[in-house]
Amino acid sequence: MKQFTSVNDVDNIDQLVQDALALKANPYGSNDLGKNKTLGLVFLNPSLRTRLSTQKAAINLGMTVMVMNMDKEGWALETQDGVVMNGTTVEHIKEAAAVMGQYCDILGLRSFPKLVNRDEDYNEDFFNKFVKYCGVPVVSLESATRHPLQSLADLVTIKETWKGTGKPKVVLAWAPHVKALPQAVPNSFSEWMCKAQDEQWLDFTIVQPEGYELSEDFTPGAQIKYNLEEALEGADYIYVKNWSSFKEYGKVLTYPDGWMMNNEKLKLTNDAKVMHCLPVRRDLELSSEILDGPNSLVIHEAGNRLWAAQAVLKDLLQNLS
Amino acid sequence: MKQFTSVNDVDNIDQLVQDALALKANPYGSNDLGKNKTLGLVFLNPSLRTRLSTQKAAINLGMTVMVMNMDKEGWALETQDGVVMNGTTVEHIKEAAAVMGQYCDILGLRSFPKLVNRDEDYNEDFFNKFVKYCGVPVVSLESATRHPLQSLADLVTIKETWKGTGKPKVVLAWAPHVKALPQAVPNSFSEWMCKAQDEQWLDFTIVQPEGYELSEDFTPGAQIKYNLEEALEGADYIYVKNWSSFKEYGKVLTYPDGWMMNNEKLKLTNDAKVMHCLPVRRDLELSSEILDGPNSLVIHEAGNRLWAAQAVLKDLLQNLS
Amino acid sequence: MKQFTSVNDVDNIDQLVQDALALKANPYGSNDLGKNKTLGLVFLNPSLRTRLSTQKAAINLGMTVMVMNMDKEGWALETQDGVVMNGTTVEHIKEAAAVMGQYCDILGLRSFPKLVNRDEDYNEDFFNKFVKYCGVPVVSLESATRHPLQSLADLVTIKETWKGTGKPKVVLAWAPHVKALPQAVPNSFSEWMCKAQDEQWLDFTIVQPEGYELSEDFTPGAQIKYNLEEALEGADYIYVKNWSSFKEYGKVLTYPDGWMMNNEKLKLTNDAKVMHCLPVRRDLELSSEILDGPNSLVIHEAGNRLWAAQAVLKDLLQNLS
Repeated sequence: MKQFTSVNDVDNIDQLVQDALALKANPYGSNDLGKNKTLGLVFLNPSLRTRLSTQKAAINLGMTVMVMNMDKEGWALETQDGVVMNGTTVEHIKEAAAVMGQYCDILGLRSFPKLVNRDEDYNEDFFNKFVKYCGVPVVSLESATRHPLQSLADLVTIKETWKGTGKPKVVLAWAPHVKALPQAVPNSFSEWMCKAQDEQWLDFTIVQPEGYELSEDFTPGAQIKYNLEEALEGADYIYVKNWSSFKEYGKVLTYPDGWMMNNEKLKLTNDAKVMHCLPVRRDLELSSEILDGPNSLVIHEAGNRLWAAQAVLKDLLQNLS
Repeated sequence: MKQFTSVNDVDNIDQLVQDALALKANPYGSNDLGKNKTLGLVFLNPSLRTRLSTQKAAINLGMTVMVMNMDKEGWALETQDGVVMNGTTVEHIKEAAAVMGQYCDILGLRSFPKLVNRDEDYNEDFFNKFVKYCGVPVVSLESATRHPLQSLADLVTIKETWKGTGKPKVVLAWAPHVKALPQAVPNSFSEWMCKAQDEQWLDFTIVQPEGYELSEDFTPGAQIKYNLEEALEGADYIYVKNWSSFKEYGKVLTYPDGWMMNNEKLKLTNDAKVMHCLPVRRDLELSSEILDGPNSLVIHEAGNRLWAAQAVLKDLLQNLS
Repeated sequence: MKQFTSVNDVDNIDQLVQDALALKANPYGSNDLGKNKTLGLVFLNPSLRTRLSTQKAAINLGMTVMVMNMDKEGWALETQDGVVMNGTTVEHIKEAAAVMGQYCDILGLRSFPKLVNRDEDYNEDFFNKFVKYCGVPVVSLESATRHPLQSLADLVTIKETWKGTGKPKVVLAWAPHVKALPQAVPNSFSEWMCKAQDEQWLDFTIVQPEGYELSEDFTPGAQIKYNLEEALEGADYIYVKNWSSFKEYGKVLTYPDGWMMNNEKLKLTNDAKVMHCLPVRRDLELSSEILDGPNSLVIHEAGNRLWAAQAVLKDLLQNLS
């Protein structure tokens, strides 16, 4: 790979998943690969799992890591071309990205959407300009529309834990929340699951209330349902997640009852494993009884963030010119 | 040790003090011990000494360090069980701690008290839940009621500098301040000194104005006095520190005159060495003439924070399963 | 060197420039030098280039780095002597600096001017006290009046890129800005260029509108001009930079037209290379056409920050007692 910003950057997802599991079994076997290589992690938004797991992944490969909290340790960046910079933005992304590329061999970038203008967010203007101008391979630490390190960890977790016969049924289920959240995690999860479905690994269903449909660009081949109980029937994995509306962009629409996942609903499934990218709002998105019970994979899944990141960084290191 | 949250976690304080002094003489002798081991430092409050000394201690042992300023780079954590998380807390400590434990071999945690509800603070609810859910050994970087890395460094400093015959007389002396400060440092110092007194290393006295008595749980065997001049008589070490009231919890009571430590009061002592955990308010808690003079140990003591932390981390590394 | 706070700390600027270029050719050749040595970077202000380039420089030399954002992770420091610390400052610089020196072999410090009281800023009170009390070699990461790592990188860039015959003509040209900026970068650039002029490397001119003259302490031997077009004639290098007034201290005086650098003005020069320390306000200080065109050295120059910092740290490591 030359960059890791979506599933489309991956030639062979099977190989990448196998790499992640191999690194989990032998974390330090490739720690010469990162010698004298530096990973720069650039955060424009808060981060816990991504921050720590990606750092640790780089360390396991022998890299050194420099973290830049651009929102707190740096300053506001300009992204538009041709504007006279006499306002509050201090530096243009052209310069900022190019400079960071001077000191780092690989860069990671987190940049959330503003959830105001759909085109602006879905064009990934900021992210793409950073990739364009920095001059080194970029790993997405979550962009306006995608969170591929999370999705790879999710796929690794399903591959690792599925012991049944045939293809597991995976359901992405919308859940309530008090805030308007991005579509990045569900977009990305869907994109990866659709790819895995293409490769005959699993069957993929998305269920959400009317008005919360994801962009069709991210759901090719997915079964789309609107009735939660119906969708859960026979599910082997349920991926619980809230997101705001794509159609009425960034809005929290009428707040429907009955979409919190709990043990009662779990009875409809094939004793499904329950996943969530975290952070999770307990007893709002997902009941405590599930999170504290035997069906929850959420901590295991978070642990796999490390091996997903390490597999990605390993691949990028091997392809550095 | 399996964790380091108070003196009660230490089997043998003599051994730990000797280890710290041995590491001071030979800092890099054990730098294979931390190979491929990662220390995560989680701060919910500001830190200078603890942040830097603990990082350096880990580095000296060959560990890598990841720092997480949870208050700035992360988000607000929920600690109560069974609440519907539809407010401002973004993640439950159950998940947050467990996730950090996935990426780190040892975790350090700093979490100050709120000084509002005494039971809540003294139950160490947040700290204990973090320990319970993270699944790896935890080092306290200062909790609501204790600061054991500071206290160990203090004991190391006394052991290292005492050249007299017999047991030194150590006095913990309350001093004025403009803010309401936690009792963590004096609680912890007292707890460690009482243990050292039990082992016949020293005699320990606490002196404070009426109303500022520490919790008796932390002062077993200590002489408690209310008259500063009387307490200072014959002292070999004076540990100057402000704290707010335990009885009228978190309050700054009537502000008594004459409690700032200065050269005039030093004359009452046996040419005592003066200690303070820092940061210190000059000419409010402690006079500049003392801080800039030959009796001050405060910088030496801060330097020993490194060796205390390194001894603790070394012990924890040796006991990793 | 024993410290690096201005050009006056450097015995031999030619040697230092050669060292930087040698390290650029062979970055990891000296990575034993920093073994078991720790660099502490203390920021009281935001930083991008300096933060990353200095970290990377230390890593290349085998050092470990600890970063302290004193303004965010620490607390307000007192600098005045003899004050009763009953206000908002939490720790005196005497203690804070001495403590940091206990854990680090070399310290870097960034501390911007307040631009209120000229004497206070130009006395470098804070910076000098930090140097005095920390007890280890200090690298300036930009002080109230100087930014020597930037200036060294600038000189390295000129030396590296000058392919003409004879001495290049270097012009420091004032440019407009919406904020009142420090004089640190132009002071420092001038100081280094004047030294290089003394050594017959180049000819140095400063051009600015009336009222924006720099302190004469930093401009010995420089040609001072007030007409931009006249100054640009025959220039080989133009260093574009805004600064606030030294005379009417910290003020943005009447805002003159015609001082933004652009391709039209470039025609007056000897096809000059254009430099800027960054961050740059596009189309306010410097036109996008120049920044995106072949005459711009700004990214190249930023890249050289790494080798400048590495040369300085290497020299300091070699001179550690």
